[in-house]
Amino acid sequence: PKRSAEAAAEIAISMVNLAKDDPRRVIHSIKVGLALTLVSLFYYFQPLYDDFGVSAMWAVVTVVVVFEFSVGATLGKGLNRAMATLLAGVLGLGAYRLASLCGKIGEPLLIASFVFLQAAVSTFMRFFPNIKARYDYGFLIFMLTFCIVSITGYRQNEIWELAHKRLSTIVIGGFASLLVSIFVYPVWAGEDLHNLVALNVEKLGSFLEGFGIAYFNIPDELAKDDKSFLRGYRSVLNSKNIEEALANFARWEPAHGQYRFGHPWKKYLEVGALIRQCAYRIDALNGYLVPDIQATVETSEEIREACVKMSLESGAVLKELASALRAMTQSPTSVDARLASSKAAAKSLKLPLLGSASWEDVELVKVIPLATV
Amino acid sequence: PKRSAEAAAEIAISMVNLAKDDPRRVIHSIKVGLALTLVSLFYYFQPLYDDFGVSAMWAVVTVVVVFEFSVGATLGKGLNRAMATLLAGVLGLGAYRLASLCGKIGEPLLIASFVFLQAAVSTFMRFFPNIKARYDYGFLIFMLTFCIVSITGYRQNEIWELAHKRLSTIVIGGFASLLVSIFVYPVWAGEDLHNLVALNVEKLGSFLEGFGIAYFNIPDELAKDDKSFLRGYRSVLNSKNIEEALANFARWEPAHGQYRFGHPWKKYLEVGALIRQCAYRIDALNGYLVPDIQATVETSEEIREACVKMSLESGAVLKELASALRAMTQSPTSVDARLASSKAAAKSLKLPLLGSASWEDVELVKVIPLATV
Repeated sequence: PKRSAEAAAEIAISMVNLAKDDPRRVIHSIKVGLALTLVSLFYYFQPLYDDFGVSAMWAVVTVVVVFEFSVGATLGKGLNRAMATLLAGVLGLGAYRLASLCGKIGEPLLIASFVFLQAAVSTFMRFFPNIKARYDYGFLIFMLTFCIVSITGYRQNEIWELAHKRLSTIVIGGFASLLVSIFVYPVWAGEDLHNLVALNVEKLGSFLEGFGIAYFNIPDELAKDDKSFLRGYRSVLNSKNIEEALANFARWEPAHGQYRFGHPWKKYLEVGALIRQCAYRIDALNGYLVPDIQATVETSEEIREACVKMSLESGAVLKELASALRAMTQSPTSVDARLASSKAAAKSLKLPLLGSASWEDVELVKVIPLATV
Repeated sequence: PKRSAEAAAEIAISMVNLAKDDPRRVIHSIKVGLALTLVSLFYYFQPLYDDFGVSAMWAVVTVVVVFEFSVGATLGKGLNRAMATLLAGVLGLGAYRLASLCGKIGEPLLIASFVFLQAAVSTFMRFFPNIKARYDYGFLIFMLTFCIVSITGYRQNEIWELAHKRLSTIVIGGFASLLVSIFVYPVWAGEDLHNLVALNVEKLGSFLEGFGIAYFNIPDELAKDDKSFLRGYRSVLNSKNIEEALANFARWEPAHGQYRFGHPWKKYLEVGALIRQCAYRIDALNGYLVPDIQATVETSEEIREACVKMSLESGAVLKELASALRAMTQSPTSVDARLASSKAAAKSLKLPLLGSASWEDVELVKVIPLATV
């Protein structure tokens, strides 16, 4: 019993950490519960139940499946589901009608071949990268609904009612999800994308600021164990998939926040790619932070100072850029000034040895025009 | 009409390319169609239909939702779905029984609070990274089934039958998917992971082989437009998510191929991480392939030759490693010999200028022990 108590305590601690890490997770969980309870009202109240009967189940299913963390993801899934159901319902009915003209033996054969054909084609379509990114779920639901409608038609005569009920319960479930998602502490994927990009720039900045000092082992007010900033950039290396997912969700979102006329998610992806490229360079720099190499490099006091200054300056530039990005202001003139001084520092070091470090600045210059968007 | 014909031709071409790229995609599409048609037999044959009735729909839904590209993914989703349905069915029934003891007013209130509570808890659990990777779908289905069973119980008295039918149709659908997935041209995620890792090593090798020549602009039999190998490594930079997904699928797969006692997917992830680190270094090297920088570097003939040799040798080492990995043999002694010669080449260049290039070899040495697994 003692061990299981310990295990339970561990789980509890990790749950608290998870919640502290991003309190929106707790809010999201409560939102899902709320939406589900809302939809289940269909069962409790007699008049509503009379209209929909067992089909009200589809509304519950829709909420569970469609409700995602951000508004964009929820909207995207909801639209996919509703559109695919509508389209597949119409086509499925058509297939059933066509088949029913073919007599008792022809009918099941025809329906079976329709089912086979559309399943194979839909599955194949889902391999297209563009479709996979935005409409994958739609194709899944299309397959599902087409099969259910056309097959059930063979057995039941209430096929029209089934198609109609399924569609309307799905729309109801989708709307319930969407309303709760938008009006109760909304989470915008566009905003998340914005913050992620700003955070990534900041992480690279912290690394560069600390790199010069760490490389030359300069004794510093910095405690030895406070080197976490040198690892922070690692998450940037693999940020591609998260950024792309967020951008895909952001595409679905209505105008909100500072972006009145649509979210410039494409720009964010471009900036994100540049930042990643910068992070690869930084990872290479990080490879030099190994005692073996550090020991073999002997440099004059002068070069050392210049290096540290350059590293500090370029780190500071990135950090200012990050805060400008966060506040969505034009990049302030102080950034330009600092950029100039870090370039000057780099110029005073025209040594091939430091070719890789001066590359940072080339990247920096590329990032700036985009940051002012 | 002409424009739409052009557009149609374009789509057709991209479909053919998609199929050529990986013919297993076509096979997979056909397999999905086959499994769906199999399951829809429930509707066509009278005796089977008598047993399950409309619930046979769940078998169709299961096939559409569970059938994935690889065996591991299908098995994982199927098990998640079946287990979650069983568990949620039992708990949902329990919740319904408990609520039904509480009188006409208490019953809906209690059920509503059960629904709210389990939805919030399940949603929160899905944020745990470990759970998200392997059991995300299971928690979704748990929520779904719990709601349906406990809510429907309030309205219908055939709740026991509902739970039983839902579970058995899901099991039937899951088995149909699994059988088709395993016995008709199976796609193993473990094999895919293996090939991906080998391919990535190969790509890095091609880059290094070409890099020395391209950097010093040595005229070569190489045509100018044949520089695609210098870009091949880019896909390696972002391989983390694909590798992790494949490893997660591979965990579900039964023993197959050369791995009798379980797939060493953890080793693959380790090797993959090393390869990625190597790719970051290579990306940094690639940054030097810009005319501006190339022009400023002036080197003696001697250094140049040594560099090219080192680059060629280390590229060749990687390529041999890749083919050894592919064939799953112990790394042949020729690799050791080549490694030694590429190290010798690196040693003859004890210049800080080339510090970054010699790093490749350090990485290489790390990769080798793992490759022999």
